[in-house]
Amino acid sequence: MKQEAKIPQATTKRLPLYYRFLQNFAAEGQERVSSQQLSEAMKIDSATIRRDFSYFGALGKKGYGYDVQYLIAFFRETLSQNEVTNVALIGVGNLGNALLKYNFSKNQNTRIIVAFDSKAPIDGTFVSDIPVFPPERLEEKIKEFGVELAILTVTPRSAQAMATRLTKTPIKGIMNFTPNRLDVPKSMHVMNIDLSLELQALTYLARSTQQANDDSLKQTEQ
Amino acid sequence: MKQEAKIPQATTKRLPLYYRFLQNFAAEGQERVSSQQLSEAMKIDSATIRRDFSYFGALGKKGYGYDVQYLIAFFRETLSQNEVTNVALIGVGNLGNALLKYNFSKNQNTRIIVAFDSKAPIDGTFVSDIPVFPPERLEEKIKEFGVELAILTVTPRSAQAMATRLTKTPIKGIMNFTPNRLDVPKSMHVMNIDLSLELQALTYLARSTQQANDDSLKQTEQ
Repeated sequence: MKQEAKIPQATTKRLPLYYRFLQNFAAEGQERVSSQQLSEAMKIDSATIRRDFSYFGALGKKGYGYDVQYLIAFFRETLSQNEVTNVALIGVGNLGNALLKYNFSKNQNTRIIVAFDSKAPIDGTFVSDIPVFPPERLEEKIKEFGVELAILTVTPRSAQAMATRLTKTPIKGIMNFTPNRLDVPKSMHVMNIDLSLELQALTYLARSTQQANDDSLKQTEQ
Repeated sequence: MKQEAKIPQATTKRLPLYYRFLQNFAAEGQERVSSQQLSEAMKIDSATIRRDFSYFGALGKKGYGYDVQYLIAFFRETLSQNEVTNVALIGVGNLGNALLKYNFSKNQNTRIIVAFDSKAPIDGTFVSDIPVFPPERLEEKIKEFGVELAILTVTPRSAQAMATRLTKTPIKGIMNFTPNRLDVPKSMHVMNIDLSLELQALTYLARSTQQANDDSLKQTEQ
């Protein structure tokens, strides 16, 4: 799939969500959908949806809305949903363990296929049916399992060293659960998921709304 | 803290990150910091940093940079870091269990203080030193523990019902780990954390870069 324009990260993050909701509409037998309907189902502003779609050229007609099956086919292709992406999990602590159990069961196209942990024996072991090897065997196993993405759930202390090591493998993306900001070449995509920060941001939002509510009466519905 | 202008959610999410990095600069004994230095440490575009800061009025002087201690004090106040925020975790499955163990240990100002699970006995039990009660006691315990935020790690089937119930409590924000998009009044803030979607977006980014690299040579460093 060729990129026509640089697509903002916020848009990129919504693409899988569009795909999921379009599948819901299709499952209900709906043939067309308006940006308004998508907006209501997804709780996203309809102007945002139209702008997101505009990055991909003419996906719909004015006054007609979007053809559900056409959009599903488009997003399936764009998101490589016809192919399976193999993921490695690095660091099988509390969070790593939970992610292995969870293993993105909602999404059959992305799966953790191998894991690494410094406590694993050299010949490997199994956690939640996933083989776990020590870091010594990282490069070898990434090749063997055809891994494309890594989930980083190691300690902050070893995060950067591991990220640097990953840049020398075929891996092209890191889902980073450590609090570190990783220094990697631009060719490596990093998605930071920092639950502490998210919770602090939520605290801020909740408290500033509280303040605004104290200052003036407010509508509670859109 | 009074809001002067509506602050975009992306900016809000970066506020705790600024606070964390400013503390790092202070720990290194630095008195002033430029947006460029922040940019390099945080791997965020310096124009984005200046724009984020501009929402809060004049935080720095041109050619001088930002005063580290002043900014720390500002963000501490803005992010209510002088106060503790009590959080409830709802749904102690795999992910819920991991979050209880993790309990945001990096951030002493936000802590899970109580949890709920349909399997818990009516008198409560303990998981990772946190009391866990059945949902029947939700409203009572939220009041008793002074809970302000909820982390939702229930099954998709019960997500909306639980969210609706939370809107009738003093809780003002939900960190939503379920794949559902929750229907709640505007006064309730929802932060969706959908790990499957994040991973799919990362797959898309990694593969589209792959494509671009196949098409033309590219710089790998900024």
